[in-house]
Amino acid sequence: MLHAVIMAGGVGARFWPLSRKDRPKQLIDLTGEGAMIEQTVRRLEGLVETDNIWVVTNVEQAEQIREVCPALRKDRFILEPVGRNTAPAIGLAAVHLMKHDPDAVMLVLPADHRIENRDEFHYCLNSAVEVVHDSEVLATIGIAPTRPETGYGYIQMDQTGIRLRDNVYPVKTFAEKPNLATAKLFFESGEFLWNSGMCVWRADTILKCIADFLPLWGAGFREIEMALGTPQAESVVKKVFSAQKGISIDYGVMEKAKHVAVVKGTFEWSDVGSWDEVWRLLPHDAHGNASRGNTAAHNTKNTLILGGDKLIAAVGVENLIVIETGDAILICPLDRSQEVKDMVDALKAQGKNEYL
Amino acid sequence: MLHAVIMAGGVGARFWPLSRKDRPKQLIDLTGEGAMIEQTVRRLEGLVETDNIWVVTNVEQAEQIREVCPALRKDRFILEPVGRNTAPAIGLAAVHLMKHDPDAVMLVLPADHRIENRDEFHYCLNSAVEVVHDSEVLATIGIAPTRPETGYGYIQMDQTGIRLRDNVYPVKTFAEKPNLATAKLFFESGEFLWNSGMCVWRADTILKCIADFLPLWGAGFREIEMALGTPQAESVVKKVFSAQKGISIDYGVMEKAKHVAVVKGTFEWSDVGSWDEVWRLLPHDAHGNASRGNTAAHNTKNTLILGGDKLIAAVGVENLIVIETGDAILICPLDRSQEVKDMVDALKAQGKNEYL
Repeated sequence: MLHAVIMAGGVGARFWPLSRKDRPKQLIDLTGEGAMIEQTVRRLEGLVETDNIWVVTNVEQAEQIREVCPALRKDRFILEPVGRNTAPAIGLAAVHLMKHDPDAVMLVLPADHRIENRDEFHYCLNSAVEVVHDSEVLATIGIAPTRPETGYGYIQMDQTGIRLRDNVYPVKTFAEKPNLATAKLFFESGEFLWNSGMCVWRADTILKCIADFLPLWGAGFREIEMALGTPQAESVVKKVFSAQKGISIDYGVMEKAKHVAVVKGTFEWSDVGSWDEVWRLLPHDAHGNASRGNTAAHNTKNTLILGGDKLIAAVGVENLIVIETGDAILICPLDRSQEVKDMVDALKAQGKNEYL
Repeated sequence: MLHAVIMAGGVGARFWPLSRKDRPKQLIDLTGEGAMIEQTVRRLEGLVETDNIWVVTNVEQAEQIREVCPALRKDRFILEPVGRNTAPAIGLAAVHLMKHDPDAVMLVLPADHRIENRDEFHYCLNSAVEVVHDSEVLATIGIAPTRPETGYGYIQMDQTGIRLRDNVYPVKTFAEKPNLATAKLFFESGEFLWNSGMCVWRADTILKCIADFLPLWGAGFREIEMALGTPQAESVVKKVFSAQKGISIDYGVMEKAKHVAVVKGTFEWSDVGSWDEVWRLLPHDAHGNASRGNTAAHNTKNTLILGGDKLIAAVGVENLIVIETGDAILICPLDRSQEVKDMVDALKAQGKNEYL
C-alpha cells in the first residue's frame, strides 16, 4: 500500500517575524494559498488515501498541524522526542509503517515546499512507486532546473545507464549546493537536477539501508520496533533519539546506497527557502511589487510587503522586503534575506525570547 | 520693547506619518528634545520676556500649541483665518504689536527650526535689534553655510559696503534654492549665507514697507488696525485675508526694500526640512544609525528608525528611513525623503483621509 510521510520538524527562522519557534514555516501561510503543510496534504488528493498520510513532527507542533489539517488521523502523527535530522525521522516513520503494513511503500515529503502542476507531480511519484514497489531501489525526485540556482543541492543523472522508466534514471552523484560558476556548469550540462528532498521507497528497504550504513541507528530502530505498542514505546524512542547524533538521509544513506534512482520531475517546484523566494512566487504588479494587507507604494519597485491593518507606505523603495506582524516589523533587502536568521540568532542572544 | 513673533502656520507633510493635518511639524518631537515650537519658545529665555512672545497660527493649532507651551499668554495668540504665506502673517502680527506697543521691535521666528548655541543665537538677534530699533532697516538672519546645500535659499552679503555692526552687512541679493553647481559657487565664495527665515525690524517699519510694496495688503491692514478691539475685528480679518492671494515676505517685501541688512550667524541652524535631516541631526551609533523605540539592527548602516513598542528589525539595510506610528509605517530611502509629501498627496487623492 502507498503511504505518504510528511516531514514537519523544521523551525524556519528564515521567515521571521511571521514564523516563530512555536509557529514554524510549515504552519504559516506565505503565499496566501493556506499553510504550507495544508497545501502539502491537499496536493496528495487522488494519490494517497487520507488514512495513509502520516506526519513526523514534535509534540509542540502536532496540535497546530492537526488544527490546519483536521482530516488527518490523530494516530498517524509520529512524534520525535528531539530533532535528529532526516535519517532518524524517516527511520522512525518506516518502523511505524512496517508495524501497520509490512508491504508499505512510502513517499517522503517535506511539509513546506511549494509545487505547481499537481498532475505532473502525481505522475512523477507514481513512476517512482512503480520502480520501488518490487525492488530495493531508493528513488528520489529531482527537478529539471530552470536557472543556475546556488541555493539547492543537485543530483546528477547517469544518462548512459539503463533507464528504469522513461523519466527514471540511475543516480551518478549527489552534489552539495554549488557556487555560481559550478551551478552554471550543472545547469548547462543538462545532466543535473535539483534535489527536491522528496523520496520514494519501500519501508523495509530504507530500514535495511539504515541498518547497513548507520548501524547504531539501525540497532535503535530494532529496539523501537520491539517496543511499539507497549507502554515502554515512548521512553524507548526517547532513549534512542537522545543517545545519538543527527544525520541527513542524503549524506547518511542515499550517497552510499547501491540502487539509487532519480525521477526527472518537470513540475514547478520551490523549497521556498527565504523571503525573496516568496516575493518571486507571489503575483506582481507592473512594477514587480507583491503585497498583502493595507499598503501604499509610490515610485516603488520589486518590493515585497506583507502587512495587516496598519498602513505600510513605501516611497522610492526598490528590492526590499517588509514584513509586519502583531509585534514586529522586518525590513531587509531582497538579496539579503538569507541574513534574517542572523537577526533571530541576535534576538536569542539578547534574551528577547518574546520575539522568537 | 522687544517682542518675538513665532510663525506657526505650517502643515509639514514632509514628516508624515508623524506629522498630520491636525498635528503639524511644529507640534511633533522630531529629535527627542520636545516639540519644535516648545524648543523655539525655550530658546528665547533671557532674550524676550514671556509676556512678549506672540504666536501667529490658526484656530485648529492654537489649542495644541498652548498645551505644549503652557507659559504663553492666551491673548498673545494671533489667529489667521486662512494661511496666506509669511507677508500677511507678519503684517497681521505687526498690527497687533503696534496696538500694544507703538515702539515695538519684532523678532520674526519660524516655529519649527532647530538651533544650537543659544548664546550665539541671542548675540546675533541682539545685533539686529541694535541696528533696527532706531532705523528703518529690515534685518534678516543669515547662517554661515557649512556645506553647498541645495535645499536652502541664500543671501549675498555686500562685503564692500559699510557694515552696520561687526557681524551685520548690507544685503546684495536674495537667491532662491540653487542647483548643486551654483550652491558650490555660493559656498566657496564666502559671500553667501543661508536664508534662515528669521527677521528683525520695528513693527512700524514693516507695516510701512508692506504698504509701499503690497498696497492692497497695506490697505487691508489699515482696516484691521481700525477694527482691532471692536466686535468686528474677527470678521474684518477674515474679509481681508479671504480677499487676497498669499505672498512671502522675502519675495513681496525684502527683495524690494531699500534698507536690508543681514546678520551673519555662526550658530548651528537647520530648518529640519525632511526626514533625512532628522537623521543628520540625531546622535548616531558607530554605523551611522539613529533610532528611537524598540529597534534591532543587523548589518545596517546610515538608517533612521523611529518607532514605538513594536520591534522594528532592520537586516542588511542601508540609507533608509523607517517611521512607525500607531496607524502607519513609512519606508523611504534617505536620499528620497523629499518624496514623502507625494505619498501624502496620493493618500489624499485616494480619499484615505484617516491617514492625513
